Parts: sequence; structure tokens; C-alpha cells
Amino acid sequence: MPQILDTTDPDFDAAFAALLSAKREDSPDVDNVVAGIIADVRARGDAAVIELTERFDRIALTPETLRFSPDEIAEAIARVSSEDRAALELAAARIHAYHARQMPRDEEWTDEAGATLGWRWSAVSAAGLYVPGGLASYPSSVLMNAIPAKVAGVGRLAIAVPTPDGQVNPLVLLAAHLSGVDEIYRVGGAQAIAAFAYGTRSIAPVDKITGPGNAFVAAAKRRVFGKVGIDMIAGPSEILVIADKNNDPDWIALDLLSQAEHDESAQSILITDDAGFGRAVVAAVEKRLETLERRAIAGVSWRDFGAVITVRDLDEAAALSNRIAPEHLELCVADPEALSQKTVHAGAIFLGQYTPEAIGDYVGGPNHVLPTARSARFSSGLNVMDFLKRTTLSKMTPEALRAIGPAAARLARSESLEAHGLSVLARLDRLNG
Amino acid sequence: MPQILDTTDPDFDAAFAALLSAKREDSPDVDNVVAGIIADVRARGDAAVIELTERFDRIALTPETLRFSPDEIAEAIARVSSEDRAALELAAARIHAYHARQMPRDEEWTDEAGATLGWRWSAVSAAGLYVPGGLASYPSSVLMNAIPAKVAGVGRLAIAVPTPDGQVNPLVLLAAHLSGVDEIYRVGGAQAIAAFAYGTRSIAPVDKITGPGNAFVAAAKRRVFGKVGIDMIAGPSEILVIADKNNDPDWIALDLLSQAEHDESAQSILITDDAGFGRAVVAAVEKRLETLERRAIAGVSWRDFGAVITVRDLDEAAALSNRIAPEHLELCVADPEALSQKTVHAGAIFLGQYTPEAIGDYVGGPNHVLPTARSARFSSGLNVMDFLKRTTLSKMTPEALRAIGPAAARLARSESLEAHGLSVLARLDRLNG
Repeated sequence: MPQILDTTDPDFDAAFAALLSAKREDSPDVDNVVAGIIADVRARGDAAVIELTERFDRIALTPETLRFSPDEIAEAIARVSSEDRAALELAAARIHAYHARQMPRDEEWTDEAGATLGWRWSAVSAAGLYVPGGLASYPSSVLMNAIPAKVAGVGRLAIAVPTPDGQVNPLVLLAAHLSGVDEIYRVGGAQAIAAFAYGTRSIAPVDKITGPGNAFVAAAKRRVFGKVGIDMIAGPSEILVIADKNNDPDWIALDLLSQAEHDESAQSILITDDAGFGRAVVAAVEKRLETLERRAIAGVSWRDFGAVITVRDLDEAAALSNRIAPEHLELCVADPEALSQKTVHAGAIFLGQYTPEAIGDYVGGPNHVLPTARSARFSSGLNVMDFLKRTTLSKMTPEALRAIGPAAARLARSESLEAHGLSVLARLDRLNG
Repeated sequence: MPQILDTTDPDFDAAFAALLSAKREDSPDVDNVVAGIIADVRARGDAAVIELTERFDRIALTPETLRFSPDEIAEAIARVSSEDRAALELAAARIHAYHARQMPRDEEWTDEAGATLGWRWSAVSAAGLYVPGGLASYPSSVLMNAIPAKVAGVGRLAIAVPTPDGQVNPLVLLAAHLSGVDEIYRVGGAQAIAAFAYGTRSIAPVDKITGPGNAFVAAAKRRVFGKVGIDMIAGPSEILVIADKNNDPDWIALDLLSQAEHDESAQSILITDDAGFGRAVVAAVEKRLETLERRAIAGVSWRDFGAVITVRDLDEAAALSNRIAPEHLELCVADPEALSQKTVHAGAIFLGQYTPEAIGDYVGGPNHVLPTARSARFSSGLNVMDFLKRTTLSKMTPEALRAIGPAAARLARSESLEAHGLSVLARLDRLNG
């Protein structure tokens, strides 16, 4: 049974605080192992990557077979059914269209002092996308990582995907192909992150690494942060559904289960202003759990981390939602737009009962790589900006320097940075002399 | 003497690669110490913060005196000269005007499938700014961190600034006051970062931490990343000046020294297409080093990490600049706009001989918190976006769900995520039935 809370309960605050701070993931302390792997890849390059891949993925590679060949990719893609291909193409087109609108503009203006100011955006030269292998190898995640990078104008796009026992998902290769990926390596884990960050003879280094991964990948990304850019440290998936009684309990149950089935550590929460509706959803979840393919995983998630919270009204729901800062937020209420104005801390909002979260996982257009573990308080889902950087521009005329230079010299003086001040004053002396 | 390189030298490539990879900072491994401090602050809160402050800053605080009182702030501000105050106010106004232009817009549109898509920006609720204490306590850095946060709309803005032996820079308090900071704590080091990330009884937790700091601060920021957002891990400052012979060697020398005087690990590089001009700049640096107040620091930086590179032409200069990816880039050439189009990897560009980098440190308008250590390849200077996050929005109509839902269900099937597919199909069944 999930937790059943009611904001009118006297112990609600304590129970809600406990729910918020519940540790859902046992992060094994792999930091020392990862540090060793990174050092090994830095020192021995390809040889280390190949040995580690043999140990962890049980496949024997050479520098030549680290990378998928064009023939291997074409052969795998040919095995994809036309229906799957069409679905992936629709998804790619919609994700592209959404992200194309995110491209920011360069700006330049001249202010009243005569200074010309502005900025210019440019793409990172090379990006590396990590794609988990095995069961959690999702072609949709390839699209969600690669397309924003391509839209941003990244010149070189590489993928690392482990192929345990040689297994590879042809749809992953097709998704990479559709999104314009240049290189695909059959390498995973911390060794893949190290190779992307520092480069080996066969794998050129990249400037930015994105994509989800296990504890080893997460620890490696944290360690190489600074040497390269990273996106975020992803945790288990979450959904919060705010629903009134005018919903089909089974639809809401399926939305909750679509997160729960990801992972035993996933979390699905329902907030409703109608306790009876909450009970109906709990019953609908139980019924679906009788037959769901991934009922073992979803059942554990729902039992350990699921929650149904009854609130007095939707304002209270919005306030709780902001404290949760959910990765995914579904608003199944009469006026979802109005409610969405109040739920400001959320990775992605799905408005109305015809927008199940799963639409956003595949074909809606917005990105499905979203901030977890309450990090929507301070971060955004993956987007085009993640592959761009902004260079600021300033140009002073002699008049502009006369107008604002003395203040700069004064502040440099106050900070005891003499050369800073002199670099301005030497120019002003000439201009004024 | 700095390194003198010439791209026509046969060993140039090796020498330039060595220059690029030179380790300029001995990062002491303080990670275990920092982990202990963070655990202590999490466990014991204020008591730990007070004990650590007594140990490191030699001042005895209580929960009541951790925070500067309004009277203390007013008293310190009253000691600032009117000239310093006017300079700081000019800087604040210009920084505000620049950053106000960075506010991004919300978007919403309906596409041909009938799906309404878009996004909405919102500010983090609370931000914590770290300000180094003692000699490196710069009021300009307070403005550069706090003003973008205020422009973004951050509700609560706190500063942590250590006050070793009780020393405090009144200009830092004035800068905080001018930028609308709400709380100022006399706490520094990893204990300040831990208090911001996890909160204590007297210091409420924040969502985002920005600002530079020493090795302890940097290690602490890396450790709390994910629990809160952080800006970047700052390294020693750098400047690259690209100058032709039509410049005053003394002006360029001062620009190089204005980075060198920051820190013995700072790096100043000149690229010129005229070897004679390069020699003249080296001579001018030597002359200025005879009298510069901070000549001990600047001299070591220039000797150990300075470089003068002669190139065949400005295209070659741009190519080298992109490999360096400098924090600060000055273009003192006849057509700086044209050259700036080619120098895409840089934190901030200063165009023309009347724009010394020091202008950008104080009054230009753009931010002076900029990516160091080649991270301009993948990151931007501090800006309004650092205090905002984007929530994506999607709303399907029944027609939109009919149009794109089947593809989502197909992809969910291919990823073996049954509940994802069912959440779409259950709705389509009703709509179609």
C-alpha cells in the first residue's frame, strides 16, 4: 500500500516532510573504484577501455571494433520494422521542431555612454552522449539527447552505449542515425565517461557529456565535471499527478504506474481534493498491478514510495507541489492552465486529462531528460542551451572610456589591484593629454 | 621571462600543447576534510558552523551573531567614501542594465497536430552567494553575483563572507546592500557551503550556490552539487590578448599584468603577428614590474605562465585562441569585430584598444564571473539564466492525442514499458469507442 496522507491530519506536516526526505536510492559508494578507472583510462587509453569492457561487458574488442562500423549500423537499422521506424521518425520530427524554437538570439546594442555591448551564442565543438545498455537502453533517450545538440549546432556528436554480451538494441542505432550522430562506441560505465573526457587514441575527447547512467556513470560525471561540461546527475524517475474527481481513476492509475514501472526506486504521488477519488485510484492501481508485465518493479515502487495525499483545495495542492518540485507534473483538473501558473517548480507540466506523461516521453516534443530528486527547484530539463555557451562582448570608444573609466579605476584602487587601474588610467592619460 | 613561441618554429606544436596542458594550480586534496566538515554541519548545524568559524577565522560567534545585523551593515556602509560609493553605484547600474536584457521570454504555441506546447521560466526561490574573505574580498564580485540573481527574480538572496580575525570590507557590505541582498553571514569555507546546502537553525538552506572560493569551497561545491545547483568550479584567472603592432606596448603590458597581479597561478598570453611588437611588450612588462605594488605576485605569474606567441597572421591567432578558450580575450587589432567572429570559444571578448579588460571587471556591464581553465569550450559566464529554470508545458486535445498517441504507444512497446503505452491506449480506446 502507498502512503495515504491528508493535510487535515494533525501529523501531516511531519509525514509530508518524511516523504520529501525519504532516501529512495542506495547510492553505493563507488567513488574510489571510479577514480581508479578514470586514472587507468587517462594513463593507458584504449588498452584500459578494452580491458574494462571485457571485464564488465564480457566482450573482446580491439581499437578498430570499439566503434560501430557503418556496415554494422546499416545492418542493425535494416532489422527495424517499418512501424517502429515511422514512430521513431515522428518522434524525432516533433522533438526537433520543439527544440528548434529554443535557439536563443545574439544581441548587440550601444548604450548612452557610447559603449557597444552584447553577446554571441556558439555551440560546443563536440558532445558525448551516454546511453545505458541492456534493458534500460532507450532509443527515445538517444533522440532526446542528440537532437538538442544537433539543433544547437554541435559539430561532432558521439554516443557511448555498452553492449553487454554483445547485445545491442537496433532501435538505439536507428535513433542515433536519425538524429545525426557521428560516432557510436560500444563502451559503457565510468570508462566511457573517462574516454569522452580525456580522450584515447581511438576516441577523441569531447567538451560536454550528457545522458543518464548508473552509479558508476554518475560518479564519473561528477569527477570529470570542470574538465568537460556535464548535464546533471540523474536520479530515479518521479511523477506527481494533481487530479480532481472528474477523472477516470484507471487513467490516473496508469499514469502513476508508468513511472513506477521504470524502477523500484521511482516515485508516484497523487494529490487530490477528493478522498474518495484517491481511494478509487488506489483500487485501480491494485487492479492493474495484477496483470502488468512489470508488476514486480512497479509494485515495489508503489508500495515503498507511492503516496496519495488529500488536500483541502487546489491552492494547497500547488503549495505541496512546489515543495516536491516534481520531475513530471500532471494537472488533471478543470482549469489546468490556471493551476500551472502556481506550480512553478517542476521539470515538465502536462496539462489536462488527455496529456498522459508518456506522451512527453516520446512524441510530445519537449525533452524527457528532466531534473529529479527535487532539483527542479534550480535546474531545467535538457535543452538546446546545454550545448551552447554565451560569449559576452564589450567595445569602448574613447568617449565611453572617458565616461566610465574613472569609476573602474576607483574600484580597482579600492580592491588594491593597481595594474587593473593603470590599464584604464594609461589610456585616459593619453586621451586627456 | 615568459615563454616566447613562434608558430614557424619546428617545435611549436609541442610547445603550445605543453602550454595548454600546464597545470597551474596545485589543488591540494582537501576532499576528505571537506566531506567531514559537511557531515559535521549536517549533523550539528549552528554548533558546527560556530566551532569551525572559531577554528579557521579566529572569531567567536553565537547563533545570533552569525548574521550581520542591520545596524552593523549601516555602520559599515557609513564609513564608505562618497567617491567609492558613486563608483559602486555606477557599476551596479550598468551591470543591472546589461543583465536585464538577458531575461528570456516564455513561449507557447499550438502545432498542426493540435498540441499546445511551450515553456515557462521561473526563478530559484533562494540563492546563496559565496564571497571570499580577507585580501580577495572583492565588492565587484558581490555585484556580479547578486545582480543577475535579483534580475532573475530570486526571492531570497544570502551572502556568506568569512571575516578572518573579525576583518570585514565595508565595500562588500555596501555592494550587498546596493544589489538587494537579504542576509549576510560571517561564515566561510566548506562550512558556509554546507550550511547553504543543508541549512542550519540560523541559516535557511538555499537552492543555488554561486561565487568563487578556495580549494575547500570548490571541493564543497562539487560535493553538494545535485542537492543544490552550483555555478562552476572557478580556477585561476587568465587573459589572452591578440594585438597587432599598432598598439602602445605599455597598454598591452598593463592589460597582461592586470591578470598576472591576481594570483601567482594566473596566466597572461599575448598573441601578435609582429615579433618586434611582442618584444616591446615584454620590455614594457619588465619595466612596469619594477614598480608595481603587486610585483611579487605578478612577476611569478608572468615568469611561470606568461607567454608571447608570434603568428603568421590573424587567422592563425584565432585558431590558437579557440584552442586556448580563454576566460578573457582582448582583440587589439584594426578590425576587432571581424576577428571576434572567428574566436568562438571565449568567456568574454573586449574589442579594440580602448577596452582594457579591467573595464569588464567593474563597469562595462557584462559579468566578470567567467569560465576558466579552458571551460569556455562548454560554459558561459555567470548570467541571469543561472538563477532561472525552464518548465516545459504540453497540452494535448483529443484530436492531438489521436494524431500522435499511437506512435507513443508503439515506442513504449518497443521499450517494454507497458504502462506507458496503456496510459495512452486507455485514453484512445475511450476516444475511439
